[in-house]
Amino acid sequence: MATDCPFCRKLSGMAAERPEDLVWEFPQSVAFLGRWQYYHGYCVLIARQHAVEFSQMPDDVRRGYFDELCLLARAIESSFQPRKLNYEALGNQVPHLHWHLFPRYESDPEKLKPVWVAIERSDRDARERERLQTGPVGKSATIDKLRSKLHELTRQ
Amino acid sequence: MATDCPFCRKLSGMAAERPEDLVWEFPQSVAFLGRWQYYHGYCVLIARQHAVEFSQMPDDVRRGYFDELCLLARAIESSFQPRKLNYEALGNQVPHLHWHLFPRYESDPEKLKPVWVAIERSDRDARERERLQTGPVGKSATIDKLRSKLHELTRQ
Repeated sequence: MATDCPFCRKLSGMAAERPEDLVWEFPQSVAFLGRWQYYHGYCVLIARQHAVEFSQMPDDVRRGYFDELCLLARAIESSFQPRKLNYEALGNQVPHLHWHLFPRYESDPEKLKPVWVAIERSDRDARERERLQTGPVGKSATIDKLRSKLHELTRQ
Repeated sequence: MATDCPFCRKLSGMAAERPEDLVWEFPQSVAFLGRWQYYHGYCVLIARQHAVEFSQMPDDVRRGYFDELCLLARAIESSFQPRKLNYEALGNQVPHLHWHLFPRYESDPEKLKPVWVAIERSDRDARERERLQTGPVGKSATIDKLRSKLHELTRQ
């Protein structure tokens, strides 16, 4: 754990209190519901181990983490039937490995573009920020749906 | 192979002629040098098998493909020492699985942001497009460096 890392702090704080945005605890990572629910089902999958790049992870941890990403992807796909999933591990601002899993929908007028162009716009425009944060149902309903799907998938 | 898929066509065309942007042929994927060499060493890693989402790939193919992504990442890291790597599988325009591997550098004034904000700008501005396409050395020198590193890494 890196004490100055916000993701390490977020994960270690879970021992005291279960965060509202928690979706699922995997062996190598923890899934949280993301901030931009215009992309309904958007999750952030944070590695339990503090590492900046995949090359710093032991092979078995890295492979387990990738398998968990694909399991979460499957849960999002079968819960919300997106047109396409976007998988992104950037870490330019928080250099602790985490995956953004953005479901993209047919109804999105910018469906051919990466999400970041709209998210960048939301930095300057409060109405746009609200639009991108709002999903078709409440966050807890989205989390419940994902959890019920992950229960199914991990039972197999 | 999907006959209307530009990536399937690109891969099948390799039998006749070796493309200039070819970096490396892996068992499950092929690495090409990307268009935006401002991100020096940027590669696109295209899956050999036509699939839209990872959930459509057999587990062993998907895991092999991820391992190849990490091998290519290691080659980029040790060749060019970026500040951070950005891994992205979007496929909003070409729905055949491919990874964008963008090395990000300390010298980039937008290093905290996803690359897409600058790339979007380049759609409207020819000078910006040229700036983002140009690397510190020629493309063939970049490819040679990556190949020599991949030879080392795959010999181990």
